[in-house]
Amino acid sequence: MAVNGVNGVNGVNGRRSKHDFSALKVNQSRLLDAIHSGCEYGAAHRYGDHPTETGMARLSLNDADKQVRDWFIATTEELGCKTSVDQMGNLFAVRPGKNSKAPPVMMGSHLDTQPTGGRYDGILGVNAGLEVLKVLHENNVETEGSIGVVNWTNEEGARFPMMAVSSGVWAEAVPLETAWNLAEVSPDEHGHHRTMKEELERIGYLGEQKASYKAFPMAAHFELHIEQGPALEMEKRRVGVVKGVQAFKWFEITVKGRDTHAGTTPFPARMDSMLCAAKLIVESNRIAKEAGGLSTTGILTGQPGSINTMAHTVTFTLDIRHVEDEKLAEVEKQCREAFSRIAEKESEKGCTVEWKELVDSPAVNFHPDCIAAVEASAKEVVQDLPMTAEDGELWRYMISGAGHDSCYTNRRCPTSMIFTVTKDGVSHNPQEYCSPEDCAIGAQVLLGAVLRYDKTRTFA
Amino acid sequence: MAVNGVNGVNGVNGRRSKHDFSALKVNQSRLLDAIHSGCEYGAAHRYGDHPTETGMARLSLNDADKQVRDWFIATTEELGCKTSVDQMGNLFAVRPGKNSKAPPVMMGSHLDTQPTGGRYDGILGVNAGLEVLKVLHENNVETEGSIGVVNWTNEEGARFPMMAVSSGVWAEAVPLETAWNLAEVSPDEHGHHRTMKEELERIGYLGEQKASYKAFPMAAHFELHIEQGPALEMEKRRVGVVKGVQAFKWFEITVKGRDTHAGTTPFPARMDSMLCAAKLIVESNRIAKEAGGLSTTGILTGQPGSINTMAHTVTFTLDIRHVEDEKLAEVEKQCREAFSRIAEKESEKGCTVEWKELVDSPAVNFHPDCIAAVEASAKEVVQDLPMTAEDGELWRYMISGAGHDSCYTNRRCPTSMIFTVTKDGVSHNPQEYCSPEDCAIGAQVLLGAVLRYDKTRTFA
Repeated sequence: MAVNGVNGVNGVNGRRSKHDFSALKVNQSRLLDAIHSGCEYGAAHRYGDHPTETGMARLSLNDADKQVRDWFIATTEELGCKTSVDQMGNLFAVRPGKNSKAPPVMMGSHLDTQPTGGRYDGILGVNAGLEVLKVLHENNVETEGSIGVVNWTNEEGARFPMMAVSSGVWAEAVPLETAWNLAEVSPDEHGHHRTMKEELERIGYLGEQKASYKAFPMAAHFELHIEQGPALEMEKRRVGVVKGVQAFKWFEITVKGRDTHAGTTPFPARMDSMLCAAKLIVESNRIAKEAGGLSTTGILTGQPGSINTMAHTVTFTLDIRHVEDEKLAEVEKQCREAFSRIAEKESEKGCTVEWKELVDSPAVNFHPDCIAAVEASAKEVVQDLPMTAEDGELWRYMISGAGHDSCYTNRRCPTSMIFTVTKDGVSHNPQEYCSPEDCAIGAQVLLGAVLRYDKTRTFA
Repeated sequence: MAVNGVNGVNGVNGRRSKHDFSALKVNQSRLLDAIHSGCEYGAAHRYGDHPTETGMARLSLNDADKQVRDWFIATTEELGCKTSVDQMGNLFAVRPGKNSKAPPVMMGSHLDTQPTGGRYDGILGVNAGLEVLKVLHENNVETEGSIGVVNWTNEEGARFPMMAVSSGVWAEAVPLETAWNLAEVSPDEHGHHRTMKEELERIGYLGEQKASYKAFPMAAHFELHIEQGPALEMEKRRVGVVKGVQAFKWFEITVKGRDTHAGTTPFPARMDSMLCAAKLIVESNRIAKEAGGLSTTGILTGQPGSINTMAHTVTFTLDIRHVEDEKLAEVEKQCREAFSRIAEKESEKGCTVEWKELVDSPAVNFHPDCIAAVEASAKEVVQDLPMTAEDGELWRYMISGAGHDSCYTNRRCPTSMIFTVTKDGVSHNPQEYCSPEDCAIGAQVLLGAVLRYDKTRTFA
């Protein structure tokens, strides 16, 4: 049976035939049941009649996040996993292998969502990891080393404004105190902005385990994720073998002008920070487009906020991206020059512009061994699927447009990612969708990649 | 003495020499004391060391507004005025004349301010009216008809988003229920948006007198106000004789796109409502400028509000103005065409734009008799001042850029306005400033205009 297919042949000489791993099959309906069961905690933004036709609003560390964490722990403990929680609320569930002392190979992603998020971003990755554990469990597979699943806290950065902050603390790239002191973007009903530490305590997920790769080392980190873009769908492929992540930087831009009356202040006397900000957003878009990168303003707020008074201060976020670090630096440089010029010379009496850097995430190159494991697994999984791609390849290499926890794990252990088809390329949206078949294909590739990587492990 | 100078000579033949009214003098230091005493209620936004170097945050019907209303009533009752409060909290104080049955000539403005407002917008007009009453009182002047002061509620429209709403109800241009049900822009500490009626009740200023020109008719309405623009200062003049108000319209524009991921959504796949809104703001500015009008966006909000997610919906206000109704209609038409074009064709995959009209205030032409009374008074007041204007005229005709309660009173009684110098043309700002001498000049012109108008009255 399947178990022997995996362990029997390869235990001896380390060579693998194409049948070694494909005999173990993920259970598509069980995977989808798990995804949608977990989504009962935090479901929001209904868009259709079917029970699963809602989006999600499971902001990190809210009550729904506590509930899905409890569910994660119950699920993994039933599978015989050892669970632990670190100081950032990162949840680790490990299924012991033959060698249970060595660092585990982890499958990780996140269960928090955007305020108007969907059912797959992050959620698919964690559930695929759980499904892999279930397949190993039901088949009594004994892996070389331990294999586990991690749920990283606040990957989205939507509630506490620093994305992937908790894998960042694990990687010792973000100081623990900085992360703990992050205040939520929207205050509670009393006007209080709660911190991550307060909320970790409140929901009972402030663990004692040090949040560090030293306290919880990993042999490798594999992350399955929806592509969140349109490429796989447009090219009619099924799997992306992710070689890295594009560089991105986040800024908070503050434009200051003067709050004067909208009816009595002629244009030459104006210092209109809203108009200036609008020009800056249009220009940053032009610059990024010309450079083959991206730019986005997702948040803009103005003060004092009155119809017939100019804003004295407008603050907006700027997210710029490029696959090459050098090109991203050039986009930033051009934006800085243009913003100064527009504020000083093309905004009537003039405004001032201040830049605050929030995130600097250089381009990431994943580990070749992990990429190779994903590639081998992907090739095997897609070979029996109907051919739809014009060039005869159902998989392709990809560079991720989005940041992920894998960017931080890659600093401390071999890492790579797998992408699945995303309907219309839409994510961070209630209608984000990955078909049941594509969810299962992704989980199957994850299973094969992890087992392949596990087989290559040698222990001192 | 002065009293005789006013009443003696003119009582007989109705002719007036230039000395008739100028013998009565406003008291500059008393006027300024009153302005700054009243500003103790709601002072905010300190910008200098002197006690009066703060702005104001006396949002309509807040606790500070209640306090200044109590002060207004105490002050006018001390002067022997009869006070009344209508269903919109409009406060009327009337000093009886020889004929106390006929409708009074009213001097009106407002005591509410913007959230970051100053000490003169509205406040100067009410205090100048009070100072006129004090001059009449201390000189025992008996006017032909009654003369009074009115404090209109929520002129700014900053807290309850409809400007001059309460003079609008008085003019029967705004239904009472619409006004009562206006909800405040920013909620209270419990997240509740209180209505005007709730707040009128809470602070004890929900009067029983019907809010209508029929219940409280006026013979005329005169309003002294800071110019709020730079013209008088730039031209080194002292007084504006206001002949009317430019037309303006307020809109709420809603741009809908799609909330997709900032890193994974290539430009051609985007429906970025923030970028689209920025383009619309820039274009509305261009159109208004080209037409010799104005356009301003004072408020913009986006949803869901996440750095790395495009906004699915952006809502912004558009305030457009022009001295001619036809030109304003043309600005609106061009904006509507441009907004549709930009949203559909110049925003990648496209966005939708919806327009909601909030205010339509056509150009206003004040009453020739009131304008004439202001002009005669202004000429008399400035004749003894040092000449500073290049063309030898210290006064000029003006068209108001801002809307005022006088726009509504003009529908129901002869109305006009007087403008005073505004430092740097700045208003709706804590540092808004009108010098003590200019405050007094304005009040003196108001005094002369009201007495002149009063003298022309004939009673059936």
